[in-house]
Amino acid sequence: MKRRDFFRNSSLSAAGIALSPVLFASQNHTDLRLAELKNEAKNIIFLVSDGMSAGTLTMADLYAKTTRGKHTTWIENYKNGRFRRAMMDTASADSLVTDSAAGGSAWGGGKRVPNNSLNVGSNGELHKPILQKFKDQGKKVGCVTTVPITHATPASFCINNKSRRDQEQIAEQYAQLNFDVLMGGGNKYFSADLRKDKKDIYANFVAKGYDVAKSKAELKTVISSKAPLLGVFDDDALPYTVDYMSSEKAQNNIPNIVEMTAVAIEKMKNHPDGFVLQIEGGKVDWAAHANDAPGLILDQIAFDQALKVALDFAIEDKNTLVIVTTDHGNANPGLFKGAKADENFARFQSMKKSNTWVMSQLEPSLSQNQLIEMINEAQGFAISKDEAKTLLNHIKDFNAEELKDYYKQPFEKFSRIQKRYTNVGFGDMNHSADYVECAAFGPGSELLPPFIENTFLHDMMLKSCGVSVNE
Amino acid sequence: MKRRDFFRNSSLSAAGIALSPVLFASQNHTDLRLAELKNEAKNIIFLVSDGMSAGTLTMADLYAKTTRGKHTTWIENYKNGRFRRAMMDTASADSLVTDSAAGGSAWGGGKRVPNNSLNVGSNGELHKPILQKFKDQGKKVGCVTTVPITHATPASFCINNKSRRDQEQIAEQYAQLNFDVLMGGGNKYFSADLRKDKKDIYANFVAKGYDVAKSKAELKTVISSKAPLLGVFDDDALPYTVDYMSSEKAQNNIPNIVEMTAVAIEKMKNHPDGFVLQIEGGKVDWAAHANDAPGLILDQIAFDQALKVALDFAIEDKNTLVIVTTDHGNANPGLFKGAKADENFARFQSMKKSNTWVMSQLEPSLSQNQLIEMINEAQGFAISKDEAKTLLNHIKDFNAEELKDYYKQPFEKFSRIQKRYTNVGFGDMNHSADYVECAAFGPGSELLPPFIENTFLHDMMLKSCGVSVNE
Repeated sequence: MKRRDFFRNSSLSAAGIALSPVLFASQNHTDLRLAELKNEAKNIIFLVSDGMSAGTLTMADLYAKTTRGKHTTWIENYKNGRFRRAMMDTASADSLVTDSAAGGSAWGGGKRVPNNSLNVGSNGELHKPILQKFKDQGKKVGCVTTVPITHATPASFCINNKSRRDQEQIAEQYAQLNFDVLMGGGNKYFSADLRKDKKDIYANFVAKGYDVAKSKAELKTVISSKAPLLGVFDDDALPYTVDYMSSEKAQNNIPNIVEMTAVAIEKMKNHPDGFVLQIEGGKVDWAAHANDAPGLILDQIAFDQALKVALDFAIEDKNTLVIVTTDHGNANPGLFKGAKADENFARFQSMKKSNTWVMSQLEPSLSQNQLIEMINEAQGFAISKDEAKTLLNHIKDFNAEELKDYYKQPFEKFSRIQKRYTNVGFGDMNHSADYVECAAFGPGSELLPPFIENTFLHDMMLKSCGVSVNE
Repeated sequence: MKRRDFFRNSSLSAAGIALSPVLFASQNHTDLRLAELKNEAKNIIFLVSDGMSAGTLTMADLYAKTTRGKHTTWIENYKNGRFRRAMMDTASADSLVTDSAAGGSAWGGGKRVPNNSLNVGSNGELHKPILQKFKDQGKKVGCVTTVPITHATPASFCINNKSRRDQEQIAEQYAQLNFDVLMGGGNKYFSADLRKDKKDIYANFVAKGYDVAKSKAELKTVISSKAPLLGVFDDDALPYTVDYMSSEKAQNNIPNIVEMTAVAIEKMKNHPDGFVLQIEGGKVDWAAHANDAPGLILDQIAFDQALKVALDFAIEDKNTLVIVTTDHGNANPGLFKGAKADENFARFQSMKKSNTWVMSQLEPSLSQNQLIEMINEAQGFAISKDEAKTLLNHIKDFNAEELKDYYKQPFEKFSRIQKRYTNVGFGDMNHSADYVECAAFGPGSELLPPFIENTFLHDMMLKSCGVSVNE
């Protein structure tokens, strides 16, 4: 009996049908056209925990429960029924497994595009980014992220570019937009000193009347300013939360995602035509790529606290749609079974440093004992001499300069060692095709059906604010 | 600044609270006591895809879409809004990561118990299993599974035993129950020839008036019988679906999960007091433990077709509550990003054999070329000579008898090799703490809140049928 016969015989509906080449193209959102909007939203806060697998959301909640005795904001609002919840298919135009550019573009431009593209289709067609649409409607618009503000997820709401990689160009594109709030990292894409072409993009923003803030202190001085804001607080991404919490210097100089979220809302909230704001926990994705469990869990916790700030505002405001989701799974981490799973998981409560920080401390001159002591000080467990040897063997052929290269650092080997002490493991170092979480609260949330493709959220945002989807 | 200060400063609600030792004990289901039952259910079909991580559900749906052009039944019924959906916390009494005995007992006995226990609490207290409660109410009751019928998940609905491992004793306990349908594998726990104590447990069932079926042919002869049914169709678990589909012999001798489900419903459906039936896709969990991707995906598909049979019955019947869920995540598999992710994933469409079958063919006398050819014939890709060498090196120190031992077979190494050809990977070979999917349809489904602990489903089943939770 052939496979198709098994299905035919075993189930009424399961006869084999050949794969259609357009199967994964975006479908029409019949549900949305039929859906009735009860109350129009004035504002939208769209929060993205980038690359958040199911295990990431779960482990953050387990961390919250074991350290604070309560759920994360995300899970608490599932539990209390405040969130409407959907499962989301995240595919891109050219793969079941999306990248952040195509994943963000599905929301930002309403169409699936190939991986690496920002709102540019396979044949070069341009899909107008959603924050440009809302700006045209008179709303204030902005983005906040913990990675460079020119990175794929904020860029997907802002601009068209056939390649996400050209972040210097994206910084220049931003200067044309007249958007109201842009905050995150990425100084190296704005600064004349650090850009390859030596252009000073900050000057472009200043010429447009922007406040430019490069530190927490500078940010404080412009909160009540009426000018639009560009805030760039680190050369590349902002620090991991776990590292930030153990660095007074970082805390003094750099606003965290919770503080940036509060400032962004404060600056836009009283606009008579409303605002649309994207908040990205971008380093959740970076931590998943690096199999960096303390980086991952604590950044998901920080993201969740930004969600609380957004939600508290929306509850009081009553005119704000909150959407919280992720663009794709990444690395499918989990807390895995073992005799000491619970006590090993509790180690995250006292970790002071990310795996990324540990990797930055590796140098060929370290002795086994020095390495063991450094990791113990940073993360609270003493690896074995054999494990230390594995790490030192990995780096022995690299010089100090080469060891600054992320791709030469033994992230995967260290993660496998760390798993023996924490029971947290990863299935890969890249994105997964997993269907993901999506939740909504406030006016317009009633439009969210229980299963969506990622493009649906673009149309839902427009319709929630009474803007035509074909605008 | 200390960690707790970060939380305190950044978020109004996040001050540190010490971990309560009873934090993970089952909580009272306030929601359920307040919830209003609209229509009482007469029947319940409770389906468990054992050890189903988010990636398992997703990959089965991607497989269904790419082979049949349509969603799985599970996802389709999210999409069409027929299912009410919840997220479920699966912890046991002694760990954030449950096993199937404690996971099943939360549903079966309504209380969290330590891992390994079947409805026996930490202090030896016995929680009456739910099918005994429903049997007392006059309902027909039964279980169907693809693993031994004495295995943890069906046993958790049927009996009390402080250890899931004593499956010979569990078979004897079953013979005392007078339940109506028990079908699956596990001959070695019933047969005088195979049991350590040489008792013939089938004789106990015959003495109680049971029909005993040991093959598909025998099953056909007793479908219309009024006697209760014990069906045991293999010595241990039933075959993986992918192996079953390529074996005419298996198909002739052994009913699959879809057929068993149809028979179980047929035998119980006209009982005036209704029925309660558990259906378990037990080898989804076994495949996850073995990192056996074709075993996993195709068994999830077969489970989904059994879900369709159950749901089709419930839709027509109108008096049947369907619950479909899993007891815990396992191995957190995923389809991961890569240049050829889509075409590599399509390889599953033509695979003929599970990884478990491939492992069973390993023997020290195999040449590299023979091994490469065997795997290519079974799964449609040619591994490299180096990869063949890795596998042959693993087994070279074992004799043929030792190689029958699951724990000596190179499952993990083979899965890592297979991942290069399929882009499907796994994070571990054991259960995860991930919060999981739960869905319900029919009368009583309105009781399901959006976030539950596993114990909730026990109370929900009772209340749906108008049975007191304190019965």
